[in-house]
Amino acid sequence: MLGGPIPASDKPIAVLLSGGLDSSVVLALACKARGPDLVHALSINYGQTHSRELAAAAEVASDFKIREHFIAELYMLKQVLGKSPLTETGSHDRLDLQPTWIPGRNIVQLAILSSWAYSRDIHTLTGGWNVIDYSGYPDCREEFLIPMARALSNGLDHFTSIIAPILMASKADIIKIGQELDVPFEYTWSCYEGLRRACGKCASCKIRLAGFEEAGLVDPVLYEG
Amino acid sequence: MLGGPIPASDKPIAVLLSGGLDSSVVLALACKARGPDLVHALSINYGQTHSRELAAAAEVASDFKIREHFIAELYMLKQVLGKSPLTETGSHDRLDLQPTWIPGRNIVQLAILSSWAYSRDIHTLTGGWNVIDYSGYPDCREEFLIPMARALSNGLDHFTSIIAPILMASKADIIKIGQELDVPFEYTWSCYEGLRRACGKCASCKIRLAGFEEAGLVDPVLYEG
Repeated sequence: MLGGPIPASDKPIAVLLSGGLDSSVVLALACKARGPDLVHALSINYGQTHSRELAAAAEVASDFKIREHFIAELYMLKQVLGKSPLTETGSHDRLDLQPTWIPGRNIVQLAILSSWAYSRDIHTLTGGWNVIDYSGYPDCREEFLIPMARALSNGLDHFTSIIAPILMASKADIIKIGQELDVPFEYTWSCYEGLRRACGKCASCKIRLAGFEEAGLVDPVLYEG
Repeated sequence: MLGGPIPASDKPIAVLLSGGLDSSVVLALACKARGPDLVHALSINYGQTHSRELAAAAEVASDFKIREHFIAELYMLKQVLGKSPLTETGSHDRLDLQPTWIPGRNIVQLAILSSWAYSRDIHTLTGGWNVIDYSGYPDCREEFLIPMARALSNGLDHFTSIIAPILMASKADIIKIGQELDVPFEYTWSCYEGLRRACGKCASCKIRLAGFEEAGLVDPVLYEG
């Protein structure tokens, strides 16, 4: 189930919603599988430089009329998360990994999501984890998600499943799914620079633009220049 | 290794230090095994009502002259953690578990500790997890800690070990170890009520007092009445 589709059910589901393209498409998939009234989304302000994406998350959540969208204001998390250009200037030393990888970010976010969901009696978690385009994020792989689901289930003393519906999808495929499900791409935010318009030059913008091109669609987000 | 002693090594170690008795004794064990200059402690303000324990953590860390003690100000975490009397009034519904259990608290804290440690090139984590006295905390058991260590190792793409040196110890045994290692018990704080003096009546105070009595020692902490 981990890397497969979100099964239809009358149980609620908790979505980790960053406001980026991937998690917005997963939100749409959750709404399709469960109905918006069973979808709860959590966004986390961890002190990211591109906090613009939190506003994007609010727009997307509102567009889908989901049951609840909660933005956790944990901007001090950046003080304790591993170093990355996304939380401060200066680069980190893992040259084998994407420079935008924040060590532990997804681990911490998933832990927080599980706790938040538990108190709502929600035990199915989902998010936009993907191994293809942002390859090199170790905490977006099955090798992490499978033991994490076991740890969460045992630590919460309640079976907790993690569903990663776009784990193996290409960016173009994700965009095509989003198009089918009326994801408001114009609200989603992928740029790491956090300006008024997307920069079009950072790794995230480049992957996004290439994905739209491959999908044969036009990205409605405004770009610089 | 998980439930055994902290092995001697010239590598640094990260301690999750709450300021309570158990984690303070583990800090002492870490200092003994590695030397205080290799010991880094992290305390997390998650909005606990007994934030008095954070001051206790600072006193204990200072007493042992460890390399670094960092208090992460994440008091907004209480908004996203599962419900418990420790973060707010009103009780939760898991009658099979201790009413002081905050669902997900240890999961989130361990996730944060791992990320904080990673950015310091520290890959050995320890803390005061214990299955005996506060029995019923699902996230203090091997069943949680073992898959969590696997999830952290894979998610951080670096082998990460969790050592729980007092996992199976009774409170009296923990106190005896602390006595041998000159833990300043007068600074440690166990009371859940968070007053100037410990209440002597909450579950945590009762376990502590019984432990000191069984160990044949006098608790130097001041109690009400």
